[in-house]
Amino acid sequence: MKKKVKVIFYPKEKIVEVDKGTNLWEAANQAGVHINSVCGGDGICGKCRLILKKGAVQTKSTTLLTRDEVKKGYILACQTRVEEDVIVEVPVESRQKKRKILVDKDAGRFRALHPSLKEKVPFKYKPLVQKMYLALARPSIHDNLSDHVRLYRYIQRKKKIPVMQSGLKVIRSLPELLRKNDWKITVTLGMRGGTIEVIQLEGGDTTGENYAVVIDVGTSTVVAHLIDLNTCETIDAEATYNSQKVYGEEVTRRIIYAEQNRLDKLREVVVSDINNLITALVTRSKVRLNDIMAILCAGNTAMVHFLLGFNPSRIRKEPYIPVCISPPPIRAVEIGVKVNPRGLLYCLPSIASWVGADITAGILATGLYRAKDLTMLIDIGTNGEIVIGNREWMVCCSASAGPAFEGSGVKCGMRAAEGAIEKVSIRSGKDIKYTTIGDSRPMGICGSGLIDLIAELFTAGFIDRSGRLDLSRDKRIRERDGEAEFVLVPAQHSATGEDIVITQPDIDSLVRAKAAIFAAVNILIGSLNLEFEDIRIIYLAGGFGNYLDRKKALTIGLIPDLPLERIQFVGNTSIMGAKIAMLSQEALETCYEISRKITYYDLITHSNYMDEFMSAKFLPHTDLDKFPDVSVLKIGSVKNCMMNMKNKNLGGD
Amino acid sequence: MKKKVKVIFYPKEKIVEVDKGTNLWEAANQAGVHINSVCGGDGICGKCRLILKKGAVQTKSTTLLTRDEVKKGYILACQTRVEEDVIVEVPVESRQKKRKILVDKDAGRFRALHPSLKEKVPFKYKPLVQKMYLALARPSIHDNLSDHVRLYRYIQRKKKIPVMQSGLKVIRSLPELLRKNDWKITVTLGMRGGTIEVIQLEGGDTTGENYAVVIDVGTSTVVAHLIDLNTCETIDAEATYNSQKVYGEEVTRRIIYAEQNRLDKLREVVVSDINNLITALVTRSKVRLNDIMAILCAGNTAMVHFLLGFNPSRIRKEPYIPVCISPPPIRAVEIGVKVNPRGLLYCLPSIASWVGADITAGILATGLYRAKDLTMLIDIGTNGEIVIGNREWMVCCSASAGPAFEGSGVKCGMRAAEGAIEKVSIRSGKDIKYTTIGDSRPMGICGSGLIDLIAELFTAGFIDRSGRLDLSRDKRIRERDGEAEFVLVPAQHSATGEDIVITQPDIDSLVRAKAAIFAAVNILIGSLNLEFEDIRIIYLAGGFGNYLDRKKALTIGLIPDLPLERIQFVGNTSIMGAKIAMLSQEALETCYEISRKITYYDLITHSNYMDEFMSAKFLPHTDLDKFPDVSVLKIGSVKNCMMNMKNKNLGGD
Repeated sequence: MKKKVKVIFYPKEKIVEVDKGTNLWEAANQAGVHINSVCGGDGICGKCRLILKKGAVQTKSTTLLTRDEVKKGYILACQTRVEEDVIVEVPVESRQKKRKILVDKDAGRFRALHPSLKEKVPFKYKPLVQKMYLALARPSIHDNLSDHVRLYRYIQRKKKIPVMQSGLKVIRSLPELLRKNDWKITVTLGMRGGTIEVIQLEGGDTTGENYAVVIDVGTSTVVAHLIDLNTCETIDAEATYNSQKVYGEEVTRRIIYAEQNRLDKLREVVVSDINNLITALVTRSKVRLNDIMAILCAGNTAMVHFLLGFNPSRIRKEPYIPVCISPPPIRAVEIGVKVNPRGLLYCLPSIASWVGADITAGILATGLYRAKDLTMLIDIGTNGEIVIGNREWMVCCSASAGPAFEGSGVKCGMRAAEGAIEKVSIRSGKDIKYTTIGDSRPMGICGSGLIDLIAELFTAGFIDRSGRLDLSRDKRIRERDGEAEFVLVPAQHSATGEDIVITQPDIDSLVRAKAAIFAAVNILIGSLNLEFEDIRIIYLAGGFGNYLDRKKALTIGLIPDLPLERIQFVGNTSIMGAKIAMLSQEALETCYEISRKITYYDLITHSNYMDEFMSAKFLPHTDLDKFPDVSVLKIGSVKNCMMNMKNKNLGGD
Repeated sequence: MKKKVKVIFYPKEKIVEVDKGTNLWEAANQAGVHINSVCGGDGICGKCRLILKKGAVQTKSTTLLTRDEVKKGYILACQTRVEEDVIVEVPVESRQKKRKILVDKDAGRFRALHPSLKEKVPFKYKPLVQKMYLALARPSIHDNLSDHVRLYRYIQRKKKIPVMQSGLKVIRSLPELLRKNDWKITVTLGMRGGTIEVIQLEGGDTTGENYAVVIDVGTSTVVAHLIDLNTCETIDAEATYNSQKVYGEEVTRRIIYAEQNRLDKLREVVVSDINNLITALVTRSKVRLNDIMAILCAGNTAMVHFLLGFNPSRIRKEPYIPVCISPPPIRAVEIGVKVNPRGLLYCLPSIASWVGADITAGILATGLYRAKDLTMLIDIGTNGEIVIGNREWMVCCSASAGPAFEGSGVKCGMRAAEGAIEKVSIRSGKDIKYTTIGDSRPMGICGSGLIDLIAELFTAGFIDRSGRLDLSRDKRIRERDGEAEFVLVPAQHSATGEDIVITQPDIDSLVRAKAAIFAAVNILIGSLNLEFEDIRIIYLAGGFGNYLDRKKALTIGLIPDLPLERIQFVGNTSIMGAKIAMLSQEALETCYEISRKITYYDLITHSNYMDEFMSAKFLPHTDLDKFPDVSVLKIGSVKNCMMNMKNKNLGGD
């Protein structure tokens, strides 16, 4: 019979008697002490932290605790066995709270628009990380290959792989695993540059459990999708604001923060966002953290720099040189992302300092790179990126729009989450209607709602062509603290108990943002000697949720005035492209090709950009010929508007 | 002016005042406190350990200290800066002793026999790790490649490399390094499976400093050569007994120890031997530890298993399955070998459980794999391995000889080091002459001396054909503790102050060893339907130093009786082959081919082996027709000898 030992859990002084050698995670369960954990005792998530106060234990070394913490007696419950009577403290961070999902519940809205990628995408299904079940022949004196060569032979019988590699840990584990499992095992193969790595071995057939997470690391929003690599389905999705926001709304501010302080802080913060998203996804689904073998990130160039710890400083300074636009696959754990400790993390290739991997993903997802006709992709995020081209050539540029269209930096703005006003109409100049995501009481206005609102205020004549609110027009337009504002929802109807308004500075930000994007589109078209008419289709992408009113985007002059059927709202193409690349090695290769092939057009070098930007700062534009289809109820004199502008601070990004 | 702080070094209580922020290594130098170090403050060797007793310091984290040590206050002097007045203790292990080389001084004897490999070896010079100097063009707005792509482009301009990879650390360091060094840097490229890894970046042109260490990890002896990868020269060499010896002289004993105790212990012990050898090599030469970018190990299969932490258990049990015979390149630091922290460690491929990478190296070095004529390689180590073949086919086998020929397990045996008797002659049956390595007073007898001695004792008639000492023959043959022994050097002439003798059990061990090898040769030849005569050349390899008397090896029947000009002593072909493979990627590829191509012939499955072994346990052999050229002065009746044998314990390995 095993020796019994006592474990006392502080601060609640719960006592339990267990067999010597029991692990503390088990002991806590027996004692009814609830300790946090996501991985279920696999030693991956690092959440079951305890502090050893007295007694001897045997604990496995882990990178999830710092040296300082180890010095202070921190241990992981699931990695520690009790040797004698012990006293441990459950620190605040380990006490299990009511299961609270740290991120929004509305991420379903961010799901890729193409639910059945398998059929629609012209790539062969071949995920970056694959599992393969093998039943090996037992060795004999006449068939005495080494375990390692035997494994490779069996893998190559099923799949021709020219170069394979595996780390020491995997090879070390091979002989026991084979013999304990009657020579039936599952190997996990991961693409790693030009070679395939045997990243994991498991006993028996576990091919049914193979998951990945694809992540869009945006400046404002981080979105994660949990993918079943066998069925190609998105099991669940989650989104959160990028916590780097406290270091600056805009990329440039964050880079400056990193220069003046600690680059690593920005990595830690976004990695923690990613871990929270993954925690939420595995908590809700039945997927084990340990079965997530791959992560693929798309994001703008600066976000990928922060994530991987590359110094982003030169991204913001002429001649705008990134450290690296096609990062190598690494182990997720290298940057602190907690999935299977041998799981790989891929980053899609970027294009230039200001055109990121999210755009490479967008080009892949929309198929622009293989289009016969001239196609345009406009991705509206904190920056606006524009790509134009077809299967022969591609040119792209970037415009600093600011985060207004993501609902950030706008007084009552919010992400496209539950309670966000996403549609607005003002009928006959007075009857205001709006709908919210989830039909909840309104909490704020998201990007698509803001576009609607500006368009409707303009159509109703509440703002003029320069975007100026006319205080005389309506009683809902009022002045507060010296600034005009329009009350969309009075306090008594809002979920916040406060008026939901759009202020004159909000409108100015939004008009500036659309002007920046439109000016970029216009210059790009012009410099290629093209006309809007030449564009066969415009894909409009961005994290707007499921809805964007193309007509209203046209009304405010955000996009070129083309027949509506030639404009397509495609949602978050970054995450869509990331998912396709995760499911197909061929698609990932295509991303590298896209990144190499595309030409980056630097607007900064274009002397007309400021003029174009100024002209686009009107609704829909100074040059109404560009928007023949926009029926403007009241078009004030452009001259007057220009005069008004001069008296104002011009602003800028 | 910087703030001054006081540092007190215990136990000698030396006090020094230094600027705040000074590192403790510097402070110790100023205080005249001598602390060990091999790397000269690079934080690699881990020898400058101190214990912090009082005061605050800033110390970089290091894997060279265990968590326990960190808890106890251990720090590395060169990695720690003082923040205020501190008291530190210099532990015994860090106190600098008089420079004592931990290994023998005679390793020059182990140098490869071909000093100018460049000319004689049919491989293109292309070391596994290469340095390349690059002067990159500064980026501009019109040439705005990422730093990473720019680097790759410049590398590929100089050398067509299809697949390149680099780790996060290297990419992270790139932007600052480029800009601090005016875009002039040196990259170190290492072969890693099917890809080339950028393993290091340095500012300026450091291509002149590129070193490697090749190591023969033998069961009894570990030999290391320091190679200048630019000149292909062996700068220096060192050898030591394998410290695993305390866990068993023979491989099988060590495997059993590993099964019953800790596998890791055996790794630690041999890694410590390797580190001691490297320490000796860098201490003597001007080479910095940090400039050693590659290690290549050859060794028998079990030794490589121990070194890499593979479970060797099944090597000794039917059907004799190794875990891995072609290990992947790893970072040397992964197994604790201390050179440049990003330096790579390669292991040559083995052939089977009992025919190791030392034989692959031997086949490469002797050119057997490309010989037109039938060629044999006999490698005499703790095991004897035999290879026969030519450029069309190769077959090999292994015989358990025991360590006698390495001077191990023999009463006055020693390695071929200074003071070892390496030549013996007994003229006219009485006049004994011997020479020692380094012409020193004799300390013991090494392998070649033992072969000479047995041959001379036999020729003089002091032992009969079964190897039995004849007490009546000479006064130098005496009985001690019930065993006959022959006094080669009386105490008054020896360096040890004791008689240097060979005992009857020593002779029996040596005869058994030669019998095991000869039986294997004989069976291999027979099973291929060949005659000795068919062999064009026999290469005799082993760690015998510079000398082996082929005639005497023939006299005792260690090798087949062929004309002397067809027998060539080639020394340590394991280290020779390792050096060639380190200098040529093509040669390494050839090693993999050899390992795949060769057929392993298992003697255990051969029913005649025991008979052949018994027949070979005579001098030179039971069947004198096999040795027509051996002039035997007195041939006793084989029958009598056989009778004698039966009364003895047959022994065996």
